[in-house]
Amino acid sequence: VSGEPADLRYDTISFLSDYGRVDEFVGVVHSVIRTLAPGVTVIDVTHDVPAHDVRAGGLTLARSAQYLAPGVVLAVVDPGVGTDRRGIAVEVGDGASVLVGPDNGLLASAVAMVGGATRVVELTSTEHRLEAPGPTFDGRDVFAPAAAALCRGVPVGDLGAEIDPLTLRPGMLPLPQIEDDGIGAEVLWVDRFGNVQLNLGPDDLVPLGVEGDRITVRIDGAERTARRVGAYAELGPGELGLAVDSYGLLALVLDQRSAADELGLAASAAVTVAPLGDDPSPNGTSSPVTLRSKA
Amino acid sequence: VSGEPADLRYDTISFLSDYGRVDEFVGVVHSVIRTLAPGVTVIDVTHDVPAHDVRAGGLTLARSAQYLAPGVVLAVVDPGVGTDRRGIAVEVGDGASVLVGPDNGLLASAVAMVGGATRVVELTSTEHRLEAPGPTFDGRDVFAPAAAALCRGVPVGDLGAEIDPLTLRPGMLPLPQIEDDGIGAEVLWVDRFGNVQLNLGPDDLVPLGVEGDRITVRIDGAERTARRVGAYAELGPGELGLAVDSYGLLALVLDQRSAADELGLAASAAVTVAPLGDDPSPNGTSSPVTLRSKA
Amino acid sequence: VSGEPADLRYDTISFLSDYGRVDEFVGVVHSVIRTLAPGVTVIDVTHDVPAHDVRAGGLTLARSAQYLAPGVVLAVVDPGVGTDRRGIAVEVGDGASVLVGPDNGLLASAVAMVGGATRVVELTSTEHRLEAPGPTFDGRDVFAPAAAALCRGVPVGDLGAEIDPLTLRPGMLPLPQIEDDGIGAEVLWVDRFGNVQLNLGPDDLVPLGVEGDRITVRIDGAERTARRVGAYAELGPGELGLAVDSYGLLALVLDQRSAADELGLAASAAVTVAPLGDDPSPNGTSSPVTLRSKA
Repeated sequence: VSGEPADLRYDTISFLSDYGRVDEFVGVVHSVIRTLAPGVTVIDVTHDVPAHDVRAGGLTLARSAQYLAPGVVLAVVDPGVGTDRRGIAVEVGDGASVLVGPDNGLLASAVAMVGGATRVVELTSTEHRLEAPGPTFDGRDVFAPAAAALCRGVPVGDLGAEIDPLTLRPGMLPLPQIEDDGIGAEVLWVDRFGNVQLNLGPDDLVPLGVEGDRITVRIDGAERTARRVGAYAELGPGELGLAVDSYGLLALVLDQRSAADELGLAASAAVTVAPLGDDPSPNGTSSPVTLRSKA
Repeated sequence: VSGEPADLRYDTISFLSDYGRVDEFVGVVHSVIRTLAPGVTVIDVTHDVPAHDVRAGGLTLARSAQYLAPGVVLAVVDPGVGTDRRGIAVEVGDGASVLVGPDNGLLASAVAMVGGATRVVELTSTEHRLEAPGPTFDGRDVFAPAAAALCRGVPVGDLGAEIDPLTLRPGMLPLPQIEDDGIGAEVLWVDRFGNVQLNLGPDDLVPLGVEGDRITVRIDGAERTARRVGAYAELGPGELGLAVDSYGLLALVLDQRSAADELGLAASAAVTVAPLGDDPSPNGTSSPVTLRSKA
Repeated sequence: VSGEPADLRYDTISFLSDYGRVDEFVGVVHSVIRTLAPGVTVIDVTHDVPAHDVRAGGLTLARSAQYLAPGVVLAVVDPGVGTDRRGIAVEVGDGASVLVGPDNGLLASAVAMVGGATRVVELTSTEHRLEAPGPTFDGRDVFAPAAAALCRGVPVGDLGAEIDPLTLRPGMLPLPQIEDDGIGAEVLWVDRFGNVQLNLGPDDLVPLGVEGDRITVRIDGAERTARRVGAYAELGPGELGLAVDSYGLLALVLDQRSAADELGLAASAAVTVAPLGDDPSPNGTSSPVTLRSKA
């Protein structure tokens, strides 16, 4: 492809981490890859996953997975660095791509999104590592060298012993719950604009028998009415919307303002979605409701 | 150019947005381009335009325009996404470069800076798009694929119907106003260091008949004296300077401190600049002045 | 190398600055390099060095130096821009790499890390510059064009007059001090995770005659006990650890929390490290101690 050395097995590494951009961590990982596999292009998915937040990192990777260029995915959110948690390389699509990172659930949802693992190895080989003065930067010393080696054509089997995919730490994708008073949903993600993605697709609303374009949203015991819209700009000032977002999931939105700030919602918060008629009170704002407690 | 495939029409995409870096939006757009036009280099101008701030994005693009490598400019600050606002591709310099983004004024100042549009199309073709589960991420689904297609040599006319450049939404570049008590200026930009760029060039001060190197600056009714300097470090501690900035405009500056914080100024704020002698009071700090109200 | 033009002398520029990512400064520098030396890959080490903080920038560069790909290092933290401080190009390893930036101590520690300067020139030539409307963006107008010229094979001697390396502004690397009550250390760096790097290696503790895995840490007169650990996750909740970090220096750490926040520490703060038995009080937390004042 396009001027890269003919002998590169993969020419793209998609890199996600919780390293932030303030320190030099991301730049050093780029430099290590540039040195070990000079023709490879590194694409930064994001490095601002909240520190140590494996769930958020895994969801970000799952959202991105279908759009990433074929190649190697390097993902590092790794609170267990230096312990005996395993480093792994997960081949998908019979080698179309390989995901490299810690075995802590971070890679699991993305792997599932692209059809599951066809081969997994634990990164036990010491041949494709940097010698490190301390054991706390495996992104630089273990994972980046492994990703670079894969790009250069080192077989995944040379990076360590094959392990059973069933032994991998699973990811945690919360499922919506059908409840007496509606569907118990959970906030997967609040984006930069304050849009609140729920773990619900449009089809999940069908069993509710919603009529019209309005729906009840219950948060912490308080009720709000949301209107189904296709675009943010269809909403009036302060009007709450429920839109199918760019990943096909339902999101609570406002026009040019943060719905998350307005509703006091963050990732993992509980939200109940119900038909408008489900509301036993006439004004739909103040009736006592059973507050769903997060499991 | 340099190892890119010989058949690339453009090998550089300069990318500006209000997507921020915390979510994966920027990384996903890079990935889409990498997949559709692998040999193209994407340069991130910035992605921290304030959310939905078309004016700030347009000014940033205009400041950058003369420095960008020839190729495609992909610019997305798009509060109207999903509505009937048009997506456009604006050819400049008879094809030297093409700017792609929403028709909301974002591109206008940059287009003007580089000599005006030679051809404009509305991005109506569905051939060069990604199928999207929801309509809120046109950067990924519409604009990036269009930019990649242009790089691959797809003629701009294949992206949609040609439209009259005169129908484009104009940008809003505030002009300084000659007033009784000086020049009414406006803050265009506060940079990371707190330097306050005004919509004034050095020539704009000529009609004021300023003598010497000191000038009066009136903000919210309060007056300060600023000294014309060539470098921040010429200023004493706390001394206010007026410098020609790196874009040739006048900026209020302090040495190693934020003039914006010190003066309480943000983008769009009004600042009146006047000769020192224009100050009716002897001490130049406390006389009542007519406060210019922003139109 | 890998599709870059055969006539590139260097194909990688490693770029560090205090420009931040909010403005377009970094993107414009990338664009200038892309225009002047199209086949060069630019790696962003970081751009979030605190504004004007030459010490922090120099330490970041020194930490990164051994991992950077051979080529040109472009480093800009430059509070003296526009004054008569010199711009310099520092050749190391007889031309293996060249560091470009202001002569204010920023480059000094990194140059020392990689074996010292083999040749230094002051960037006096006006041939390899951009004409600038104002003198405050030397990263764009002076340093990036110089870096691009070096990549294209322009001899370092063509960029200006050779100067004596001994005349360069030195960097400031604080050395630990042996004191009556332990070793007086200094915080070099607090990273994104709140780990507190000290200017101490493990060998520096040997003269203390520390026994066992616990050690006393004195901050602002208060004492804490820290435990030597290999990984963050070995620590109990709230337990303070002393680990060899990824650069081989000692760092105060907590498990999945910020030690800097917990201890109230920032860069340049003083920390005294002493053997556990050195504590004259039985409980080790409240005895009056001589507070080390920073020189």
